[in-house]
Amino acid sequence: MLYLVHMQVNIPATLAPEQADRLKAEEKAYSQKLQADGVWRHLWRVAGQYANYSVFDVAGNDELHQTLMGLPLYPYMAITVTPLAQHPSAIALN
Amino acid sequence: MLYLVHMQVNIPATLAPEQADRLKAEEKAYSQKLQADGVWRHLWRVAGQYANYSVFDVAGNDELHQTLMGLPLYPYMAITVTPLAQHPSAIALN
Amino acid sequence: MLYLVHMQVNIPATLAPEQADRLKAEEKAYSQKLQADGVWRHLWRVAGQYANYSVFDVAGNDELHQTLMGLPLYPYMAITVTPLAQHPSAIALN
Amino acid sequence: MLYLVHMQVNIPATLAPEQADRLKAEEKAYSQKLQADGVWRHLWRVAGQYANYSVFDVAGNDELHQTLMGLPLYPYMAITVTPLAQHPSAIALN
Amino acid sequence: MLYLVHMQVNIPATLAPEQADRLKAEEKAYSQKLQADGVWRHLWRVAGQYANYSVFDVAGNDELHQTLMGLPLYPYMAITVTPLAQHPSAIALN
Amino acid sequence: MLYLVHMQVNIPATLAPEQADRLKAEEKAYSQKLQADGVWRHLWRVAGQYANYSVFDVAGNDELHQTLMGLPLYPYMAITVTPLAQHPSAIALN
Amino acid sequence: MLYLVHMQVNIPATLAPEQADRLKAEEKAYSQKLQADGVWRHLWRVAGQYANYSVFDVAGNDELHQTLMGLPLYPYMAITVTPLAQHPSAIALN
Amino acid sequence: MLYLVHMQVNIPATLAPEQADRLKAEEKAYSQKLQADGVWRHLWRVAGQYANYSVFDVAGNDELHQTLMGLPLYPYMAITVTPLAQHPSAIALN
Amino acid sequence: MLYLVHMQVNIPATLAPEQADRLKAEEKAYSQKLQADGVWRHLWRVAGQYANYSVFDVAGNDELHQTLMGLPLYPYMAITVTPLAQHPSAIALN
Amino acid sequence: MLYLVHMQVNIPATLAPEQADRLKAEEKAYSQKLQADGVWRHLWRVAGQYANYSVFDVAGNDELHQTLMGLPLYPYMAITVTPLAQHPSAIALN
Repeated sequence: MLYLVHMQVNIPATLAPEQADRLKAEEKAYSQKLQADGVWRHLWRVAGQYANYSVFDVAGNDELHQTLMGLPLYPYMAITVTPLAQHPSAIALN
Repeated sequence: MLYLVHMQVNIPATLAPEQADRLKAEEKAYSQKLQADGVWRHLWRVAGQYANYSVFDVAGNDELHQTLMGLPLYPYMAITVTPLAQHPSAIALN
Repeated sequence: MLYLVHMQVNIPATLAPEQADRLKAEEKAYSQKLQADGVWRHLWRVAGQYANYSVFDVAGNDELHQTLMGLPLYPYMAITVTPLAQHPSAIALN
Repeated sequence: MLYLVHMQVNIPATLAPEQADRLKAEEKAYSQKLQADGVWRHLWRVAGQYANYSVFDVAGNDELHQTLMGLPLYPYMAITVTPLAQHPSAIALN
Repeated sequence: MLYLVHMQVNIPATLAPEQADRLKAEEKAYSQKLQADGVWRHLWRVAGQYANYSVFDVAGNDELHQTLMGLPLYPYMAITVTPLAQHPSAIALN
Repeated sequence: MLYLVHMQVNIPATLAPEQADRLKAEEKAYSQKLQADGVWRHLWRVAGQYANYSVFDVAGNDELHQTLMGLPLYPYMAITVTPLAQHPSAIALN
Repeated sequence: MLYLVHMQVNIPATLAPEQADRLKAEEKAYSQKLQADGVWRHLWRVAGQYANYSVFDVAGNDELHQTLMGLPLYPYMAITVTPLAQHPSAIALN
Repeated sequence: MLYLVHMQVNIPATLAPEQADRLKAEEKAYSQKLQADGVWRHLWRVAGQYANYSVFDVAGNDELHQTLMGLPLYPYMAITVTPLAQHPSAIALN
Repeated sequence: MLYLVHMQVNIPATLAPEQADRLKAEEKAYSQKLQADGVWRHLWRVAGQYANYSVFDVAGNDELHQTLMGLPLYPYMAITVTPLAQHPSAIALN
Repeated sequence: MLYLVHMQVNIPATLAPEQADRLKAEEKAYSQKLQADGVWRHLWRVAGQYANYSVFDVAGNDELHQTLMGLPLYPYMAITVTPLAQHPSAIALN
């Protein structure tokens, strides 16, 4: 089941740079693991912003929530979720 | 080059049903042709709404604009465009 | 899987009263059938408005979309969907 | 009498982690006591956010306000309240 | 129990003037009856707008909804409701 | 002359608790003095929020501004003002 | 007493041109009479829009409302009102 | 050439009171000098807010920007600018 | 003096196609005349929308307003204006 | 390919003045280098605000994103991007 997720990252200036760097590295590893597993199906940068649009393929709302809460940068993100359904004109299945 | 596009369809009640049906059929054919060509890379229904999120792969802003203006339902759509860039953590190229 | 759905009804003044009445009767029957089936789990009127908040229990995004599109008043509704997950402090399962 | 309540939790980074943990534990106990009493009738997590939608069954506006002000995390919440009425198509009483 | 209610009136240009006049007269009578009964406790015009702020004193959400739905101009109003509680510094009871 | 005033209180976490308590006590005394004088005609708590809706009866815009600026918690409030006029259907004078 | 008023004019396409012209002429006469009387103290066009910002000098909220309701184009305007007070740094009295 | 300018002042709690007082005194002197010069043509307090609406008479966009940047409180202000044109019904020239 | 202008075109479905075509042709001629004169310095299409961003070089607010009001499609446009000043880092003069 | 970019600069009060000055100097040099190269085609100050509207001429979304991320003040900016296409009435090519 697919969800479009928008993540806006707001790392506060008070976070120590080394801690920010460590979180970003963990975030990258976490993200790439999920991409390799097919859960984080798409990951795009919004041009000009520290933000991304992503598509997740999960079993449902609960798995989506657990996956997003697991993001190392989760405490510094504003997240919005749009549930996606099969479009009748799409030539591919979701 | 990728763009995330949100289309909200608002067909007015004053449009004759047969004309609406014809436009929807043309829209479907237009959309599926572009999907087969790889231009309209993704097409998802927003759950609960007469709206979609789509990803287009085009040469740039001009081709995107021409492609969207060619939509048979274009006069009845509210469209927003978000340009997408390569995300440094993505394991796939855009 | 649960979704909170907000429906705002906007019946245009140009709709013939008898047609509006017929659609409202069909809407009521459709709604009560789904409530009896356990799909439309809750239905509340927003005080002072021709709107409701509802909770649906469906298999996922696709069933939710099909269910909402089947509403007889769907063409006259503005709908927003919020996917719900299990809350760790809830004493009941979703 | 029912109210739909949306709570968005914003715990500031300056709050000591042990104090935050203590408040969260108190919040959970407070919430589960009210759920067991039938006052906090529903509690759902908004997927992807540190937020919930809840339904309270109280005697009226004053009891609702007192109940919400008693939340241990109240100082860190943005709360909105929607009063709910009986829907004429609902098969259950509020 | 008190509620602050904001009503914005939007009478469409397509409504026949005599019908509009009849509805306004009915609205006035309905309003003054409820004011005399103590249900519609306050009624103020918003300066410069075809809108009012009102305070209703009713048994709860259901009576409020029934009262507002009974407004002759209800189909032409946009209504918002704010539930009010006793303020700890108020020298009068609600 | 009447004005509807909405006050949202935002006391920063950096304010010392004893200073906050002192300001709140001063605010209560200031408010009750003006209520007794008939200037602060109504004071209601917005259910679920650290906010109030109030009605002031003053000579005009200048007295309203001076009265609001005199609030001990004024530096921590977001205030909006709506000027009210006599409603033609009201059975009481403003 | 001064008020800043913003008026946005939206004349519907369904209004007969001769009726629109007559209303505009009446509006101009009404406006110039009030300007000559010192009630409509300032009248400025918002560059690029069919809108104006105006300053009215009236006895209070009721006179302001009556004055605005008397505008021949009132039914086609969206109006917002901001009450103005004496600024402590102003070298002129309001 | 006239511009309507809205200034909202937000002095942070971290600014030392004596520095805030000094800036306010400088702001007042700067403002009164420009008023005397006819550049800052009007200055009104928004009732209930630490904000003002002002009208500036300057040679153009550049002089306006330089004048506003010279405000001693400029770093603590949110400013919006509306360019004004001659209104065809105004009896006075801008 | 430069202004950034955003124009959103909303031609109503009730406008006869031949009249719409005539207005569009007049709009194009009007626009190209002003571009050739150096008044309409830039004209860009917003990708995916029936809208443009333009830069005008005029003597001031009044000439800008007259120029925009002269647009053949002016009655069907929503226009916003942003006055531009010389940027201190720009290597070209406005 | 052209993009309209809006940059709002928000330098926090906690940034040391000398560091802010250094960043601003770097920003100016970076900006003027790109202007000389023809990449940053236009740079205008928004009158009255610490903000600018700019037009970039880049190969596409990725180059735009890299260019904006390279801004020395990037961490203190809120940026929005509007992709621009050739307007059919423009007498110049983008």
